[in-house]
Amino acid sequence: MGDGTERRRRSGGRAGNARRSSSDVISQAPWTLPINTDRPTEPLDAEGVEAIHNGAMRILEEIGIDFLNEEALALLKEIGARVNGSNVRMDREWVMEMVAKAPSEFTITPRNPDRQITIGGRTMVFGNVSSPPNYFDLETGKVPGTRKQCQDLLKLTQYFNCIHFAGGYPVEPVDVHARDRHLDVLFDKLTLSDKVMHAYSLGRERVEDVVEMVKIAGGLSEEDFCARPHMYTNINSTSPLKHDHPMIDGCLRLVRRGQAVIVTPFTLAGAMAPVTMAGAVAQSIAEALAAIALFQWVKPGCPCVLGTFTSNVDMKSGAPAFGTPEYMRATQMTGQMARFYGLPLRSSGSCAANVPDGQAMWETTASLWAAVQSGTNAVYHAAGWLEGGLIASPEKFVMDCEVLGQIIRYFDPMITATTPDDIAVDAIAEVGGEGHFFGIQHTQDRYETAFYQPFLSDWRNFEGWELAGGIWTAERAHRLFKEIVNSFEAPPMDIAIRDELADFVTRRKAEGGAPTDF
Amino acid sequence: MGDGTERRRRSGGRAGNARRSSSDVISQAPWTLPINTDRPTEPLDAEGVEAIHNGAMRILEEIGIDFLNEEALALLKEIGARVNGSNVRMDREWVMEMVAKAPSEFTITPRNPDRQITIGGRTMVFGNVSSPPNYFDLETGKVPGTRKQCQDLLKLTQYFNCIHFAGGYPVEPVDVHARDRHLDVLFDKLTLSDKVMHAYSLGRERVEDVVEMVKIAGGLSEEDFCARPHMYTNINSTSPLKHDHPMIDGCLRLVRRGQAVIVTPFTLAGAMAPVTMAGAVAQSIAEALAAIALFQWVKPGCPCVLGTFTSNVDMKSGAPAFGTPEYMRATQMTGQMARFYGLPLRSSGSCAANVPDGQAMWETTASLWAAVQSGTNAVYHAAGWLEGGLIASPEKFVMDCEVLGQIIRYFDPMITATTPDDIAVDAIAEVGGEGHFFGIQHTQDRYETAFYQPFLSDWRNFEGWELAGGIWTAERAHRLFKEIVNSFEAPPMDIAIRDELADFVTRRKAEGGAPTDF
Repeated sequence: MGDGTERRRRSGGRAGNARRSSSDVISQAPWTLPINTDRPTEPLDAEGVEAIHNGAMRILEEIGIDFLNEEALALLKEIGARVNGSNVRMDREWVMEMVAKAPSEFTITPRNPDRQITIGGRTMVFGNVSSPPNYFDLETGKVPGTRKQCQDLLKLTQYFNCIHFAGGYPVEPVDVHARDRHLDVLFDKLTLSDKVMHAYSLGRERVEDVVEMVKIAGGLSEEDFCARPHMYTNINSTSPLKHDHPMIDGCLRLVRRGQAVIVTPFTLAGAMAPVTMAGAVAQSIAEALAAIALFQWVKPGCPCVLGTFTSNVDMKSGAPAFGTPEYMRATQMTGQMARFYGLPLRSSGSCAANVPDGQAMWETTASLWAAVQSGTNAVYHAAGWLEGGLIASPEKFVMDCEVLGQIIRYFDPMITATTPDDIAVDAIAEVGGEGHFFGIQHTQDRYETAFYQPFLSDWRNFEGWELAGGIWTAERAHRLFKEIVNSFEAPPMDIAIRDELADFVTRRKAEGGAPTDF
Repeated sequence: MGDGTERRRRSGGRAGNARRSSSDVISQAPWTLPINTDRPTEPLDAEGVEAIHNGAMRILEEIGIDFLNEEALALLKEIGARVNGSNVRMDREWVMEMVAKAPSEFTITPRNPDRQITIGGRTMVFGNVSSPPNYFDLETGKVPGTRKQCQDLLKLTQYFNCIHFAGGYPVEPVDVHARDRHLDVLFDKLTLSDKVMHAYSLGRERVEDVVEMVKIAGGLSEEDFCARPHMYTNINSTSPLKHDHPMIDGCLRLVRRGQAVIVTPFTLAGAMAPVTMAGAVAQSIAEALAAIALFQWVKPGCPCVLGTFTSNVDMKSGAPAFGTPEYMRATQMTGQMARFYGLPLRSSGSCAANVPDGQAMWETTASLWAAVQSGTNAVYHAAGWLEGGLIASPEKFVMDCEVLGQIIRYFDPMITATTPDDIAVDAIAEVGGEGHFFGIQHTQDRYETAFYQPFLSDWRNFEGWELAGGIWTAERAHRLFKEIVNSFEAPPMDIAIRDELADFVTRRKAEGGAPTDF
């Protein structure tokens, strides 16, 4: 990059950016796909797993799931499910036979193949906050989301190496008409980021347009595209016990073309699910497996992820709570069930707090540790979420990324290595009972890589911190956010591809975009 | 309580307190000794455990530990240790034989037997912040500690049911002369709290005075006192590889009278210990076992706890860091070693943050989850710690107690129960695909106890939170702190005992208190 020819051919990168490089703003660990080496925390014994499984199967067999989708109902009649109106009851043998076809691990490859991610096995990947209608930062307070804010959050998504994939819109840009929103945001996403893309299953046009744009961005023929996963969708069932038309429609479109789907029932215990956590988990499993079984029937072996969004409500206000003890245990229990079914697991980085303060961090940290403990493979909303998902915040995004960086480092086996060099008896003998380890060769050889280096945590003593302004964490995060977005460099993209994307957006807008009657 | 006779006999309690009862300030879960039901996280395989053990034994055999205590040196000569000046090398066979005598579980019984705690097994108990020289609250900023602040923090220690034992001074009252400090603070501690007491091993007088005061407060004869643990001390080795005189002296005094000791090397990797975490753990184990073996020789079966304070330093500034990935793994590794030796484990709730903000909570929450994952039995500094232990903060105390309450609730097996009532297929059938679970009997029967009820977390939506003043967590914690201390009721104490304690303090002060040349 750098000569005139290339600058004509490529946008993004360092080209045309004379300001401070964003890569200089902070020093962060390189992109990696972390391997969760911990044995999962398993609160259920074998009988407990069997009890939840049996409960889920009884829900599917005796109570049934509503599919508000004619195509799904027709398909399910084919296999002999008991279809009564929109209610579908299916036998456990068939469900288990179908679920067994799903892979326990797969990859998704975005336009930059170096950003390929693995979903499943022991790999753990993180995505940004998705879909809040509102935005909060220390300057604006809480305001409805805009395209500019959405772009800023996409820049953070691209910038941080600990964020592996893009979720839905990091904030809903309500200043863009819903008819055109998916086109504008996908253009922004694909030009500002080279990470894995998501499509909302909100009607045929939104899914098909994203597919076309992902194909354009990746230079993929239809055959290339269908050959392996290049993108994904995430759907929520409408708990209790219901799958809406556009969600199933979007998934069917994607699985038929080999793309990935995440099925995430939104089962708040005490509201849309039983007040007992095992009951809420059983219902969540039934809702998820009903859809996953259908998708495996349609496209055997298609990549499906079991999502969990089981938490409790505040029984005083009915408001959802996140990162609670009940949330943690539900996530761990669902992890056990995911392994029982051989499916990858998705959970979330979530909190109920309204601002990026102490509560926000103990709730989010608890959610993220539950993700680790449960063996979660993909963590949605891992950075930037506030107010139970109603607010996206760039300060919270930066704060969460510090926590994610530490979790990724936590998985580095060098920390717990026990070779003779690690046990370091010779170094201990060298220092003996006097002096310290700062100066010895054993330390000098290792100190640059021995420990996690924070970019946001302030480890100075109080006086040093005060001398530097006495800035609390959220304000420090705000400053970093500004520095990062103001010096952001988009990843390289061929100008011809960028033009083709822009032309596609223009054409589709002229055609009327997508229906807004969803 | 309440009639005139009783008011003459008892101080504390509701007697004479016409203000709002502190028990009304918040609704908290009752006192309980939580059982950690999770399988520990174990980053080391059997070879790794053996490698650290072998490293620790080589340190003891080949490098040796300095005991700056003549009595200890004489005792260690008795058993044939190789004593060279203050350096002592001991054989692994003897160390392991001694360590095997230590109980893996024991109780400590304070003046109120209902506040007895268990240390060891799967029980997990929490103590307050100990020993910071400074105090921070949102009104005062950072200031040197005072007796008034120390009393306020003791009130929080007593008030919160999630705090099981008192540590050292929750803040150093530097307005009280060091000669008398232990007398005044112990009087405050014993009258403001009925939980398990601690003595600093800082010279004969300080230990013996605390012993006498604990005996007076509990109405214990010397024989009663020695019959089982009623108090404890915690010592730090002076890493690398050194035990100072007063620490060993205090422990010897206590173990001979059947009281508990915690031995906690302060092994900051890269400073007082190797830069490699396994090396820092090996050194920490060697330092701790050297002392514990001595104590078991002196008093076989005496209650000893393996403490860990292994973390890393910021290699830029040399400042200690806490709650880091390296800290978490070191704590987990030390947990594996504690189980290998059959010893209870102590770790900490710690952070490097200077104020009670987001960083403080992600670091502390990481420390506390490391405590859970490591199978820690006693968590020191579990509430109120800032700036690497240089600041005690009441706001941080209240915030930490919310996290501790959630951890205790997390251990409640009811969350993961899987009886048919929990799986709740009937309730799911009753609600079906329409409606919600709020109103049904299954929910009504359980909603009051189904979920953790926070006292500090604000789970309202943004608008509700804003209407209530838009108060960030630290400020909410400050208000709760004020309400609690202003309406605090001391636990009941017989007036005669209180008078005897006061007389003891007066007499000992007249005798000159304790030497200040430590």
